[in-house]
Amino acid sequence: MMIIMRADATQEEISLVVDRVETCGLRAHLSRGEERTIIGAIGDGRPVNRDQFLVLPGVDRIVPISRPYKIASREFSPNNTIFPLDGVDIGGNGIVIIAGPCAVESRTQTIEIAHAVKEAGAHVLRGGAYKPRTSPYTFQGLGEEGLQILADAREATGLPVMTEVMAPELVPLVSSYADVLQIGARNMQNYALLHAAGESMRPVMVKRGMSATVEELLMAAEYVLSHGNRRVILCERGIRTFETTTRNTTDINAIPVLKALSHLPVVLDPSHSTGNWEYVTAIARAGIAAGADGLIIEVHTHPEQALSDGGQSLKPERFAELVRQVSLIAQAIQREVAISRHAQHAPAAKVTP
Amino acid sequence: MMIIMRADATQEEISLVVDRVETCGLRAHLSRGEERTIIGAIGDGRPVNRDQFLVLPGVDRIVPISRPYKIASREFSPNNTIFPLDGVDIGGNGIVIIAGPCAVESRTQTIEIAHAVKEAGAHVLRGGAYKPRTSPYTFQGLGEEGLQILADAREATGLPVMTEVMAPELVPLVSSYADVLQIGARNMQNYALLHAAGESMRPVMVKRGMSATVEELLMAAEYVLSHGNRRVILCERGIRTFETTTRNTTDINAIPVLKALSHLPVVLDPSHSTGNWEYVTAIARAGIAAGADGLIIEVHTHPEQALSDGGQSLKPERFAELVRQVSLIAQAIQREVAISRHAQHAPAAKVTP
Amino acid sequence: MMIIMRADATQEEISLVVDRVETCGLRAHLSRGEERTIIGAIGDGRPVNRDQFLVLPGVDRIVPISRPYKIASREFSPNNTIFPLDGVDIGGNGIVIIAGPCAVESRTQTIEIAHAVKEAGAHVLRGGAYKPRTSPYTFQGLGEEGLQILADAREATGLPVMTEVMAPELVPLVSSYADVLQIGARNMQNYALLHAAGESMRPVMVKRGMSATVEELLMAAEYVLSHGNRRVILCERGIRTFETTTRNTTDINAIPVLKALSHLPVVLDPSHSTGNWEYVTAIARAGIAAGADGLIIEVHTHPEQALSDGGQSLKPERFAELVRQVSLIAQAIQREVAISRHAQHAPAAKVTP
Amino acid sequence: MMIIMRADATQEEISLVVDRVETCGLRAHLSRGEERTIIGAIGDGRPVNRDQFLVLPGVDRIVPISRPYKIASREFSPNNTIFPLDGVDIGGNGIVIIAGPCAVESRTQTIEIAHAVKEAGAHVLRGGAYKPRTSPYTFQGLGEEGLQILADAREATGLPVMTEVMAPELVPLVSSYADVLQIGARNMQNYALLHAAGESMRPVMVKRGMSATVEELLMAAEYVLSHGNRRVILCERGIRTFETTTRNTTDINAIPVLKALSHLPVVLDPSHSTGNWEYVTAIARAGIAAGADGLIIEVHTHPEQALSDGGQSLKPERFAELVRQVSLIAQAIQREVAISRHAQHAPAAKVTP
Repeated sequence: MMIIMRADATQEEISLVVDRVETCGLRAHLSRGEERTIIGAIGDGRPVNRDQFLVLPGVDRIVPISRPYKIASREFSPNNTIFPLDGVDIGGNGIVIIAGPCAVESRTQTIEIAHAVKEAGAHVLRGGAYKPRTSPYTFQGLGEEGLQILADAREATGLPVMTEVMAPELVPLVSSYADVLQIGARNMQNYALLHAAGESMRPVMVKRGMSATVEELLMAAEYVLSHGNRRVILCERGIRTFETTTRNTTDINAIPVLKALSHLPVVLDPSHSTGNWEYVTAIARAGIAAGADGLIIEVHTHPEQALSDGGQSLKPERFAELVRQVSLIAQAIQREVAISRHAQHAPAAKVTP
Repeated sequence: MMIIMRADATQEEISLVVDRVETCGLRAHLSRGEERTIIGAIGDGRPVNRDQFLVLPGVDRIVPISRPYKIASREFSPNNTIFPLDGVDIGGNGIVIIAGPCAVESRTQTIEIAHAVKEAGAHVLRGGAYKPRTSPYTFQGLGEEGLQILADAREATGLPVMTEVMAPELVPLVSSYADVLQIGARNMQNYALLHAAGESMRPVMVKRGMSATVEELLMAAEYVLSHGNRRVILCERGIRTFETTTRNTTDINAIPVLKALSHLPVVLDPSHSTGNWEYVTAIARAGIAAGADGLIIEVHTHPEQALSDGGQSLKPERFAELVRQVSLIAQAIQREVAISRHAQHAPAAKVTP
Repeated sequence: MMIIMRADATQEEISLVVDRVETCGLRAHLSRGEERTIIGAIGDGRPVNRDQFLVLPGVDRIVPISRPYKIASREFSPNNTIFPLDGVDIGGNGIVIIAGPCAVESRTQTIEIAHAVKEAGAHVLRGGAYKPRTSPYTFQGLGEEGLQILADAREATGLPVMTEVMAPELVPLVSSYADVLQIGARNMQNYALLHAAGESMRPVMVKRGMSATVEELLMAAEYVLSHGNRRVILCERGIRTFETTTRNTTDINAIPVLKALSHLPVVLDPSHSTGNWEYVTAIARAGIAAGADGLIIEVHTHPEQALSDGGQSLKPERFAELVRQVSLIAQAIQREVAISRHAQHAPAAKVTP
Repeated sequence: MMIIMRADATQEEISLVVDRVETCGLRAHLSRGEERTIIGAIGDGRPVNRDQFLVLPGVDRIVPISRPYKIASREFSPNNTIFPLDGVDIGGNGIVIIAGPCAVESRTQTIEIAHAVKEAGAHVLRGGAYKPRTSPYTFQGLGEEGLQILADAREATGLPVMTEVMAPELVPLVSSYADVLQIGARNMQNYALLHAAGESMRPVMVKRGMSATVEELLMAAEYVLSHGNRRVILCERGIRTFETTTRNTTDINAIPVLKALSHLPVVLDPSHSTGNWEYVTAIARAGIAAGADGLIIEVHTHPEQALSDGGQSLKPERFAELVRQVSLIAQAIQREVAISRHAQHAPAAKVTP
């Protein structure tokens, strides 16, 4: 870290800072400019409490140099992390598509949608059994019954399933049903939950909190990684800004930034990042064009009857068109939509205009 | 809710919306303007899924009319909620001051600080036994040992203690040691935790999430209230904006807004809302001037050795000066700093300039 | 507009509002719900001062129904606005590429870059003669000398030129040199300037302010349109958010939203919306995939010597690669990069992988 | 500035950066850590183009050390800037209150309000003759006629007048009528206007842009100061955030931050920073408690008939109550509302509870 002294810092104040730097087992490196003195505190990579310097007299501010995440960083692992899920590579050249209803509402609804998204080319079924809802008075999910329905849908279609887990003590139960755990945006800094997910044997998709920085998303991933679970997927799902024509603002910049800073797979959730089905396909195309490794899309056979988020859900035929358009974009950047082993016919065959 | 049709909506589209409104057991009320038709959907207060209308053809947007929170609203309870805590009224005319270290680091440190804040006029001791930390590599709190230390500090000083609970399964344990539970900003939408806090018998302070709206804070409170726990305190602790000279932006507007919309006590946390001890006293004064019912302040006897948030902690003598200044501001608005039954001498005696 | 009364509004308060609605020449339409009464104020489209209702006793809030912009709206003109610029259609099926240095620094530099961008496929040359700079101590542009250099570059290459105008009294001068006027982000709500631009005979590109909503961008365009100048281009250039890994956050959602709400051409400026040349190409691809009609890109032959914004400028060879990649994306959505009459060889020929 | 190299930067890349630092006439100072090398570039205070280093191979990022503003900084002038305006000191221990209508609507209205605010204790009359309005279809101000009305109101009451100037060519005209020029939030980065204001002989109040950082506000002030005009007032008027219960978010932190970083007087505009008359008084109190040197308040005798911003305007009796409450807060921090030479009776006499 660099410790930047105030312009009017005295020699004694500088010396005091140097002493403390050395007391912490760091080397101090002085740089005297015309206006200010800067003290570099050089360590061996172990974390140091920076606040202790901020309160010393004469200190103006601290500039961190090292990135706070380690295992998640591109420097830790120059090559992309790629891992298989039911025969499809996550993080590889193939684009992975995760789709399904916002919430598991019933056995019939879920299995109907599962067949529809599989038919359209999805690789993974998503659906919420436990729903984080802003209001305590709205549908909160079916709980374990919903998990069983997801397992039935996997049975019926062969698609692996991803579902959200909302509390640490539920991780074992959810892991026993689901193929991939989802940490929701509201829980991105629920560290007890990240610990528990890190100790599970399931791949974990971490959704960016609605006001989390890219660095904080990587720190959340670091929590999971530091427990030995290396199968982590990062998900951009829109951030909160002043703009109101869409529910969230898709931070499309985050796609290439995350790919530059980290080796982990990155998926985009255009359903939540726009909040409006009319814009989902355009933003899905943009996400793939920007370099995302996959998409997660809300699909519902009867959006007008959905118990949550119907307004951002695509009908199956629109979802199939989205997959078709995304395939063409993927080809334009020398990628392709991954070929599912469940595909009756390769999506490539569908994409001929 | 009001359903605003597109300017080009057809008569059939309007009729379809009216039909669905009535199918939901609501009354439809048409209003035809020059440009657009608006359909009022009038119900009996029960929640209705708005998304089902958003996806109907011809619908432009939905404008909610009712507030989504009920028990938390000023309309539900026109009088301020006031409840006693160890002889001090929370939410009454007296200003309540909660103070202590960010983290419980050791028995000695905690009891030393507890004595110091009591001496300076604090009514409640705060301290974290479980710490939500951005990095998995930094100090995460002492856990149950920290809770025991807080209980010892209560024993030593008589001050009731407030501490954060981070996971639903820890609510019973934390409740057995602490007098007030704190829901941290990162967990404001951790609904499993809010449920558990709602079922505890302890008062609960809910901190606003760093990008939560005032309405979302009230919805989080509603989760706790809806489980029958009516002793809820709202805490403004700064929001995330583009400004970088301070760690967060104190949303001072939220103080009078929350007092207007809700009957619950409102406290301000200027330590987190500024992130810099130099600004804490000025913003504490502003919070009381704006109408807050209390303050929560980080105090440390040795900020430069604090294991977390040292940069925003006040030394005891500066904290005593803060209490003195806040008392004068309180008097200027016909309030006063509450008189603690532990006070050797009334704070009023201290405030003579 | 809808006037939503407080839950406790009295009958007299409601009557007073109705009276005032009718005094304004509007029709009042009452809708009484269980909790609240709503008063629709139905007019003939003329603007009404809404604040007059907000201050009446018993009024909770006002919900506007009409959009505040007229000529800019898709409802005003269902078909896309398309206009020719030196043989290329702006707003048509062809993607238009505007490129050049941030600032005009010298005759040699500008003409060298102009040739380079033309060679790579650009249709319009951009370059700043008047530079809005945060600091009064940095390079402020060459002024009229810069305009003359741009005219020389047009002479040398045949490319039409776009440049920023920063003050109303400069509109005639800048219009006498430039083919397209640019209103910069910092001046998006400089209404005196928008008036002057509206009265010029030149097409005007209006850049979104860094914290302007989509609606405010359309209102800025409305200022220009309302003076009779219908050749307006909208430009998304990134908005200010809490994220710091990029200079701004590209609001990619704004592309399909603007296309849905307005008939005006929409271009994306990925140089400013990322602030980092490493991410420009990925975000340029995303913009076209999302439906933008064009791109504006900073290119410099010697970015490390640029007097401003070098960090986000592409070298000509990287820019040529950007054009190649964007062409492939355009084809994937049944569009193409527009064919310039200056192209020695059609860009289509370049895009073969 | 500090140039932070990538972890994988080569020795040649480091040497290249050092060479360029020295070519710029700066001294290079190397600091090699375990992970990264940092190069300090030490100069003599003259501005250097940082972007030139950002594009060099191996460079990760640049950390500026010097503040970009000079004359505005507390380091430049440790003592507060204080200047007289019609017998009242701006920036001194006395709180200055500026009040009046949002817009000058008529002679009668303006003079009536001017008398009312003077009677209640205001020191300066504000009123807009040129109005920046989001919509081209709403009232744009009376222009020079409005300036004449303001001059008449000064004649009638003795109060000095402050009014907004929106275009550089209007600065001489507005200066010939007004005692203080106001640069509006939308024009904070209208540099042509800042230049012109810097060359006028009038004091200038610069309002913070709605998404401007504190540093950018100081840079805008620097533009005015650098032209030799040292009578600059900074105004916090709320920033744009995601919160929607108020029109803007009052950045109360900015008050003590600006006082720490700069010697210039700081005033708060709670009318705009809340957008709702109900919250204006509470936030005015907060602003003074936080250390502001003055307030600017919208007052209207008939807010429901105001042509703009009626919803945030106080009636004269509420404004008088605001002044009374603010006086008490000022006394609590050993300040007072300044005594106007126009006061028939000292405000101090009014503040007895």
